[in-house]
Amino acid sequence: MRRILPIFALLLPTMAIAAPGPSEIVAHAPDAAWADVPADRLLVMTLGDGTRIPIELAPQFAPAHTGNIIRLARAHRWDGGAIIRVQDDYVVQWAPHDEKANLPTGFIAHPPAEYDRPRQGIAVRPLGFSDPYAPAAGFAAGWPVGMDQDRVWLAHCYGMIGVARDMPPDTGDGQELYAVNGEAPRQLDRNLALVGRVLTGMDHLGALPRGTGALGFYANNARKVAIRTITLATDLPLGQQPHLQVMRTDSPAFAAYLDARANRTDPFYVHPARGVALCNVPVPTRAKP
Amino acid sequence: MRRILPIFALLLPTMAIAAPGPSEIVAHAPDAAWADVPADRLLVMTLGDGTRIPIELAPQFAPAHTGNIIRLARAHRWDGGAIIRVQDDYVVQWAPHDEKANLPTGFIAHPPAEYDRPRQGIAVRPLGFSDPYAPAAGFAAGWPVGMDQDRVWLAHCYGMIGVARDMPPDTGDGQELYAVNGEAPRQLDRNLALVGRVLTGMDHLGALPRGTGALGFYANNARKVAIRTITLATDLPLGQQPHLQVMRTDSPAFAAYLDARANRTDPFYVHPARGVALCNVPVPTRAKP
Repeated sequence: MRRILPIFALLLPTMAIAAPGPSEIVAHAPDAAWADVPADRLLVMTLGDGTRIPIELAPQFAPAHTGNIIRLARAHRWDGGAIIRVQDDYVVQWAPHDEKANLPTGFIAHPPAEYDRPRQGIAVRPLGFSDPYAPAAGFAAGWPVGMDQDRVWLAHCYGMIGVARDMPPDTGDGQELYAVNGEAPRQLDRNLALVGRVLTGMDHLGALPRGTGALGFYANNARKVAIRTITLATDLPLGQQPHLQVMRTDSPAFAAYLDARANRTDPFYVHPARGVALCNVPVPTRAKP
Repeated sequence: MRRILPIFALLLPTMAIAAPGPSEIVAHAPDAAWADVPADRLLVMTLGDGTRIPIELAPQFAPAHTGNIIRLARAHRWDGGAIIRVQDDYVVQWAPHDEKANLPTGFIAHPPAEYDRPRQGIAVRPLGFSDPYAPAAGFAAGWPVGMDQDRVWLAHCYGMIGVARDMPPDTGDGQELYAVNGEAPRQLDRNLALVGRVLTGMDHLGALPRGTGALGFYANNARKVAIRTITLATDLPLGQQPHLQVMRTDSPAFAAYLDARANRTDPFYVHPARGVALCNVPVPTRAKP
């Protein structure tokens, strides 16, 4: 076993000096590598215990669904709602208190199945490694995606948010949403509308108690996690709006970060994989300096 | 968007009848598709709140490390220990109360870096889809693995357990162990010794509060999760030994399950991926009937 190690061990001191690790690349990325998350596509979910979870929407991929979601937030439809389902290694799901109540003006009861979109009009940086779920994978406008020659679609990575639906593919209207909380369930790609991602706070959502009912639904209503509010950031007082940035996936810093994730040369590593899965390259986020 | 749907929608009723989903395949797998987990490679971790977490060891891949771990368990070294680190989307890590105390007879202070093993002597079922981390991926003797022509190694999938170490590659002696609690950190493959997996109870370990210190270590000692005992199953009274089975990865049932995970034809799916990642094919476990 050890016979494979000396080569790497000998290389390590050089590599450690030559190539910074992913965290260092992110920490030292220039301001030009970061893009503000605009307040009009930023939701703030506040849980019963006061935890604030900022969510970025992806209107480039699901305009009808994100339109519905913005209308729902502005109408305070989730205030008093709850997290109703936590299935281990799968999803956290939430819903309004009453899904049948009057829906806001402009709400689309049966939005189209926004499961992918044309490649035209959106620039893509290829991952550069094979993807078992799609002909190719990469990053488009800051988001992890699968793609073929004509279409591009958001990928079910950790923290991505989608629209729950029943069996017919057009029944998800955006009232019930889920966030991925485990190994990327990429089999769901192109089968549900992904609409955004949790920017910070997965450490909280990921640690919620798992539901004991079928599919991780909370069998006991008392276990449900209360949602105080979900608000569009533009509707918050200026002082309460989060100011967050996401790394531009078309930046040189992101290219370096992606390369470092695939070729770990920080000193801990004796055997860099020389490859990486799409969802193991989380797009960096930071507070706006 | 909808234009891609009718083809699949039309196919669905036929497919739903023709091909059962992964859960149905597992539920109906014959007894011959299951292998008992022998008590002499089965640990039972009991947490402070009484939760029992059975852990299967993988001596085929890491004989020196699993030998150490069995000696530590038989010497009650983890009794009164704690989970000291929970890093979101990465690992849960535990340790004995005192790592410097007398170590059991036969304990190897510096085991070899058991990061891979020869392919010879272990049968492998290929995954059948590309893997970004290894020349090929598959399942060997019930375990998810990466491989090249000569070597085979365990993969860092959800619930897999490894030996924490410091910078030099041989410093992990098996006292501090970690379990993967998020998106598979496969960059760690061949960089740490994997020694087993959590058979049931990841729903509990996965929901532990994340540590607020650097790397998810619990900054506050009071937050640490107490470990009452970690015991080799053979040292438990017969009535307290878990009787668990893992699906044989060389069985026809597993082949059908793998195929169904990659080609989701249950009625919910409108667009089967026709591919799947290694770690998104968790090897099924059940109580022995």
